[in-house]
Amino acid sequence: MPDATLLEVFPVPDDAPFVIEHTNEEFTSLCPMTGHPDFGEILLRYQRAPASSGGLCVELKSLKLYSQSFRNEGIFYEAVTNQIRDDLVALMKPAWLQVITTWRGRGGIRSVIRADAGEIPEHYRGR
Amino acid sequence: MPDATLLEVFPVPDDAPFVIEHTNEEFTSLCPMTGHPDFGEILLRYQRAPASSGGLCVELKSLKLYSQSFRNEGIFYEAVTNQIRDDLVALMKPAWLQVITTWRGRGGIRSVIRADAGEIPEHYRGR
Amino acid sequence: MPDATLLEVFPVPDDAPFVIEHTNEEFTSLCPMTGHPDFGEILLRYQRAPASSGGLCVELKSLKLYSQSFRNEGIFYEAVTNQIRDDLVALMKPAWLQVITTWRGRGGIRSVIRADAGEIPEHYRGR
Amino acid sequence: MPDATLLEVFPVPDDAPFVIEHTNEEFTSLCPMTGHPDFGEILLRYQRAPASSGGLCVELKSLKLYSQSFRNEGIFYEAVTNQIRDDLVALMKPAWLQVITTWRGRGGIRSVIRADAGEIPEHYRGR
Amino acid sequence: MPDATLLEVFPVPDDAPFVIEHTNEEFTSLCPMTGHPDFGEILLRYQRAPASSGGLCVELKSLKLYSQSFRNEGIFYEAVTNQIRDDLVALMKPAWLQVITTWRGRGGIRSVIRADAGEIPEHYRGR
Amino acid sequence: MPDATLLEVFPVPDDAPFVIEHTNEEFTSLCPMTGHPDFGEILLRYQRAPASSGGLCVELKSLKLYSQSFRNEGIFYEAVTNQIRDDLVALMKPAWLQVITTWRGRGGIRSVIRADAGEIPEHYRGR
Amino acid sequence: MPDATLLEVFPVPDDAPFVIEHTNEEFTSLCPMTGHPDFGEILLRYQRAPASSGGLCVELKSLKLYSQSFRNEGIFYEAVTNQIRDDLVALMKPAWLQVITTWRGRGGIRSVIRADAGEIPEHYRGR
Amino acid sequence: MPDATLLEVFPVPDDAPFVIEHTNEEFTSLCPMTGHPDFGEILLRYQRAPASSGGLCVELKSLKLYSQSFRNEGIFYEAVTNQIRDDLVALMKPAWLQVITTWRGRGGIRSVIRADAGEIPEHYRGR
Amino acid sequence: MPDATLLEVFPVPDDAPFVIEHTNEEFTSLCPMTGHPDFGEILLRYQRAPASSGGLCVELKSLKLYSQSFRNEGIFYEAVTNQIRDDLVALMKPAWLQVITTWRGRGGIRSVIRADAGEIPEHYRGR
Amino acid sequence: MPDATLLEVFPVPDDAPFVIEHTNEEFTSLCPMTGHPDFGEILLRYQRAPASSGGLCVELKSLKLYSQSFRNEGIFYEAVTNQIRDDLVALMKPAWLQVITTWRGRGGIRSVIRADAGEIPEHYRGR
Repeated sequence: MPDATLLEVFPVPDDAPFVIEHTNEEFTSLCPMTGHPDFGEILLRYQRAPASSGGLCVELKSLKLYSQSFRNEGIFYEAVTNQIRDDLVALMKPAWLQVITTWRGRGGIRSVIRADAGEIPEHYRGR
Repeated sequence: MPDATLLEVFPVPDDAPFVIEHTNEEFTSLCPMTGHPDFGEILLRYQRAPASSGGLCVELKSLKLYSQSFRNEGIFYEAVTNQIRDDLVALMKPAWLQVITTWRGRGGIRSVIRADAGEIPEHYRGR
Repeated sequence: MPDATLLEVFPVPDDAPFVIEHTNEEFTSLCPMTGHPDFGEILLRYQRAPASSGGLCVELKSLKLYSQSFRNEGIFYEAVTNQIRDDLVALMKPAWLQVITTWRGRGGIRSVIRADAGEIPEHYRGR
Repeated sequence: MPDATLLEVFPVPDDAPFVIEHTNEEFTSLCPMTGHPDFGEILLRYQRAPASSGGLCVELKSLKLYSQSFRNEGIFYEAVTNQIRDDLVALMKPAWLQVITTWRGRGGIRSVIRADAGEIPEHYRGR
Repeated sequence: MPDATLLEVFPVPDDAPFVIEHTNEEFTSLCPMTGHPDFGEILLRYQRAPASSGGLCVELKSLKLYSQSFRNEGIFYEAVTNQIRDDLVALMKPAWLQVITTWRGRGGIRSVIRADAGEIPEHYRGR
Repeated sequence: MPDATLLEVFPVPDDAPFVIEHTNEEFTSLCPMTGHPDFGEILLRYQRAPASSGGLCVELKSLKLYSQSFRNEGIFYEAVTNQIRDDLVALMKPAWLQVITTWRGRGGIRSVIRADAGEIPEHYRGR
Repeated sequence: MPDATLLEVFPVPDDAPFVIEHTNEEFTSLCPMTGHPDFGEILLRYQRAPASSGGLCVELKSLKLYSQSFRNEGIFYEAVTNQIRDDLVALMKPAWLQVITTWRGRGGIRSVIRADAGEIPEHYRGR
Repeated sequence: MPDATLLEVFPVPDDAPFVIEHTNEEFTSLCPMTGHPDFGEILLRYQRAPASSGGLCVELKSLKLYSQSFRNEGIFYEAVTNQIRDDLVALMKPAWLQVITTWRGRGGIRSVIRADAGEIPEHYRGR
Repeated sequence: MPDATLLEVFPVPDDAPFVIEHTNEEFTSLCPMTGHPDFGEILLRYQRAPASSGGLCVELKSLKLYSQSFRNEGIFYEAVTNQIRDDLVALMKPAWLQVITTWRGRGGIRSVIRADAGEIPEHYRGR
Repeated sequence: MPDATLLEVFPVPDDAPFVIEHTNEEFTSLCPMTGHPDFGEILLRYQRAPASSGGLCVELKSLKLYSQSFRNEGIFYEAVTNQIRDDLVALMKPAWLQVITTWRGRGGIRSVIRADAGEIPEHYRGR
């Protein structure tokens, strides 16, 4: 079952801006309607808050374990996307954050879901 | 015969914005002039209304069954495109919605039809 | 001889906007100077008028037959492009319309001709 | 010797705008320094003046013969580019015109020369 | 251990602007959590200060030795990226500077980190 | 030794604007630190001054000989780039000029250096 | 329902050998287990018997109509492949014949079925 | 747990030879050493026995369910490959059979395992 | 220091033949002449001995740790390749084994080294 | 006019076999029927005779000048190909020699001509 307590953070050392992207090519969960497995790719992109505001980054191994906790969960694509956004926003309180999930498809239909939090810079919109 | 009653929805949990794309690579209907089969790809892209406005998403398996209901229908490309847009707008009342259909062609002519509802964000126009 | 009477239309059901592209990869006419065949690709892109203004779409099979009526006509590239634009504007009175013809070339010279009617949206110009 | 008298024109039938591109992949002239042959590609792109201003188009076969008249001329890349622009502007008095020449190179140096006349639309600059 | 004293500079001769990119495809460090090696590519892009402000460039071989000093260091991706930015900003005091690190991934997750200093020109953002 | 006296010019015939690109794929110099050869590609792009201001173009064969004069010179990438810019600006006094050098790399580090003179048009920046 | 009586033939004029390939990219039938549509590509490759043995070729439009007769048939991939092979062997009695069907897949599994009749030449095996 | 009883067969109608390939792009199991998920692609290729010898084919949906039964099994790549080969050989007694598994990799190491049963035709070996 | 004691094996269950490939894209060692890092890709391909002869497979995580033990070793490309072959042959006594190492190169020279043990099947030679 | 006296040779130092290819991408001659220019690529491939038989190689700059001597010659593709073969066989008396000419085409027809002298090795035939 998706378990946000698996997520760990580490503080950022200073206020200089930077943007982080993590792309998980090995995500799988279950379709809540049929029980069959879904396979997707999860792109997480965010700018963490500055150190002076208590800025935090998600630790990579904990992100992997958190992702694996969806493995046997029956859950819609949209709910996966929203939950990852919400859990990470709650965890890190970033300046802004995007989650883009791309699914291999079932019954001939491929899907992409994009969820945002905060003001996404112009050059990252729709990408 | 195209049957919008096959479509099912599920409510969205909150108001955070997200954009959904479903691409059906296996659409087929019949040419109303000749009875020969047409083959196309249907891209549906939309931003659902926020939860506080009763926002809804179309369920994926129901979208597949709805798409299959065009299989033996004699219908123009433009009418396919418009009907899918109209049925889904009536169903979900989204913030905005695009339907882009791409057809393999007959007699050497390939076609693309783009139908919109609401205000499409700049970075999705003509794409 | 190019014959616009071959073109047929069908009415559009409502006022919701959509953009249509037809690409004919199998166009041929004759060079008016030498009598040799020219081979080209014809891209037609338009937004039809809304139903409330009597909006019409060109029917695809009739477009194919119309295109074939140029087969034994001696006619310049520019004239082909203009005539198709003019015949289709007269037929459909669309909101806007583009005709882009791409020619395989003669004597080592390839050509592209772009003809417009009405105000082409920014994201379609030069494409 | 480059001979602009080879160029022929034909009048345009109306005022509707269109843009014409001719790409000659088989251009050759001689280096004025060494006498060795140069090989290049010539892109001519222009919007002719409207019919109401006496708009003209260059005829394609005459353009080919004109291009061939450079075959045994010792002439710099820049001069080829400028002369073609000037001859065609004098001939057609177009709304605007670009000549872009791309040269296969000598001694390991490839070259591209862009010459303009009139106001080039934004979406054609640097292309 | 990362050693900024390995970095050497040379003065720039004048004030004319230029932008420098160095891409190191052979970066490796260690994961601070597991001790396993990480492999990445480091893009450094900057505009040095003008000579009249004491502008400096980093010397390439010293940059390579500095990069190699991370080889046996246990350090997070984000910290690598920030430390390289901070060390080079302290060294060169450039007009602006970007460090973009791209990591091959662990546990199926690939990462990209972008850190900036100063005002990045529009045409380099998000690239 | 780099020898700008090898460069020759020829006058431009008129004031019509044009942009020239020369790409030398066969540039080599020596690393001033190690004495090992460096291999690079040199892109020179400029708009020459109009004829009415004494506009000049660099002659191609002289550019090749000038490029070859760096062959046994120990010189940094940045210095190559700046020297070519400065020598050509002094020679031609162009409206604007870019030199972009791309280096195959040493020790796993590839480099690109961009040097400008004058106001570069928007559509050539960062390209 | 698959209907081999739709197939028509024409006689071959002489005994010189030749090999024919027809690739139908628009084949669809139904899954006999679930009723859901299957989409595939059918490659037919054969060498017809010589004219002196009554050699025959399948007529192309009749092959298209025959293919369309599978549209609403519930039938396994293997049975589609075998039936096409058997119907065409019975119709044409070719020297040899291959049917290779490639299916877009269901539930993440793509399939290719190869059925042969007669002695397939070495250079067509497994292709 | 891998469950061969999920597999179903159907009889083949005749003795004409054919070769079947099923490629499952969505296979996942668990590493028996670490418990972390593995992701792979399974290619099954076989020639079934002729009908006169009781030839059988594996039914596609049952193959999918069987593949899914490895989802939460801790098992080596080699054991996955061998078990699939052994289960399918026991089920179908084919003329020959190949299983080729391709794994996305862990710790930077990608793997391919090829297991055979019977005499593989020359043109399928090592492919 | 390269440490073959890190390697672990597991027994194979039966005698059915199979071929295993492991590709490590993240190999690094040090140049014994200069001390600078080398980066390469290691392909290991082998057929293990049958179970009846005590056939063994190398365990993947142990192979990764063994590969990492070269990280700070000064060693030639050829010696890396030979040592990996010899250590794995001694460990597993396979039917045959190939090690192919591909190196990113230094000073502009890329290298590939192929080492064999036993009789390599025809279709794997030179690949 | 094609002038074989432009060709120069140099002797080979020993008897060890080697095969030489020269590819001229910038060949042009004239069509003898229309006077229009033809553009082609000339591949010359040969094994020179051993030194002990007076083996000779064609000098590269002389080959270029010889190629340029066809520039204003009216000559068929086939005659170009044959003459180059005959002139070079007479000049060098090689063990074997191929001339393969590839022409950009006129009126939509591209052409390739292959002319041989001596016994061409199996692996160069038809390439």
